[in-house]
Amino acid sequence: MSSVNLVNQQWQMLVFERFMEILKTPYGNFPAMWNLANAINDAESLKQIVELLSQHPTAKDAFHKRLLLGTIDLQQLHSLPKNTLGYAYAEHMLGNGLKPIQPQAINHDYDYLMVHLTETHDIWHVVTNTDTSIAGEIQLQAFVTAQLHISRFSLAMLAKNLLKTAVEDLDLAEQRMDALTKGWLMGKQAKPLFGIQWHTLWEKPLAQLQTQYNILLDIPATSVSAMSTSNN
Amino acid sequence: MSSVNLVNQQWQMLVFERFMEILKTPYGNFPAMWNLANAINDAESLKQIVELLSQHPTAKDAFHKRLLLGTIDLQQLHSLPKNTLGYAYAEHMLGNGLKPIQPQAINHDYDYLMVHLTETHDIWHVVTNTDTSIAGEIQLQAFVTAQLHISRFSLAMLAKNLLKTAVEDLDLAEQRMDALTKGWLMGKQAKPLFGIQWHTLWEKPLAQLQTQYNILLDIPATSVSAMSTSNN
Repeated sequence: MSSVNLVNQQWQMLVFERFMEILKTPYGNFPAMWNLANAINDAESLKQIVELLSQHPTAKDAFHKRLLLGTIDLQQLHSLPKNTLGYAYAEHMLGNGLKPIQPQAINHDYDYLMVHLTETHDIWHVVTNTDTSIAGEIQLQAFVTAQLHISRFSLAMLAKNLLKTAVEDLDLAEQRMDALTKGWLMGKQAKPLFGIQWHTLWEKPLAQLQTQYNILLDIPATSVSAMSTSNN
Repeated sequence: MSSVNLVNQQWQMLVFERFMEILKTPYGNFPAMWNLANAINDAESLKQIVELLSQHPTAKDAFHKRLLLGTIDLQQLHSLPKNTLGYAYAEHMLGNGLKPIQPQAINHDYDYLMVHLTETHDIWHVVTNTDTSIAGEIQLQAFVTAQLHISRFSLAMLAKNLLKTAVEDLDLAEQRMDALTKGWLMGKQAKPLFGIQWHTLWEKPLAQLQTQYNILLDIPATSVSAMSTSNN
């Protein structure tokens, strides 16, 4: 075996080990996710993600300036009109007992990729209208997978969630496969969301932003009704 | 820990071990699939699949009579008109160097479930218009997952294929996620195919059967065009 193949095989074994670890932990275990991400995300594929995202000016600018959301006052956002992004985000965060994340140090584009995705994760929940149930997380994960184009970590997380469903929650299989399908289709149809400076948009109506970014909330219904019509 | 929990935990560990084994083998390794299926398919979920399928009279009859395809003469089928199921099946089998499977002994409905799915697998390839590439297999797997409603094994195979894609074939991630999504949507829309006695239908036009069983070959295109229209 060549040394390249050996390194590759060792890497795969590490990934599979971390995958086994996360399988055995409850959903939402951040250290296990972090361990899996660190193992599976090689520099080459991260570079490709950054390049693909940077084809869009919003992401390119965000990477260049390493733009962050800054301090977020949930109580203040919660006082905005109920149809705004800010109110919906605050309602989501307060309703789920969540706090905005303090970003870690950013020394590289790869750090920014992870930090931006992490600090905007709950905003993506709001704009894609996904809740924090496991089905909601799967839908958003599939959406993110489509938006990132070639994310090893996102694919592995989807695989993990399907296998856990097979073993632990078989009766929810259809709901979760529907969620995965919906998220993937929505993520492919939506405009690129990476790098959007959401904190400048708090006062915008949520529905207006969803239209602007082509976030189609009724994709499966649209598909099914379109298909039924065309086959009747 | 209660004894039930202990048994459950031991079962999960066995499933995860078999999952690791199949991850490390090349695609299409039947012994590894068989080992995973035997580990993950508990009697209770198989019983539920049989019950759900048997709500449809075709499957109910097939389970009752344990109907099999019988001997298949590929050369004879290949002499049928080119628009028939028989010709398309023979073309698929001969073109891929495949031979019809000799079914094993059937002592139980669960055996019949596996035997029927195995011996009709390549007919399902033909009627769903999926090839034997990995993307084609993923699409058919997702189709089968939808048709079986609650198959632990099918979900685990999808999980396996997503994780292998993440690690081995990242550049094909989009193609494979598209295939999974397409197969799932097609499988949900199609009428139940389990138990159909395909060998009585060899002379029927393939396109007619696809219409009859609501097998929608252009689902993603339909969805996307429908969605684009509704948002322009």
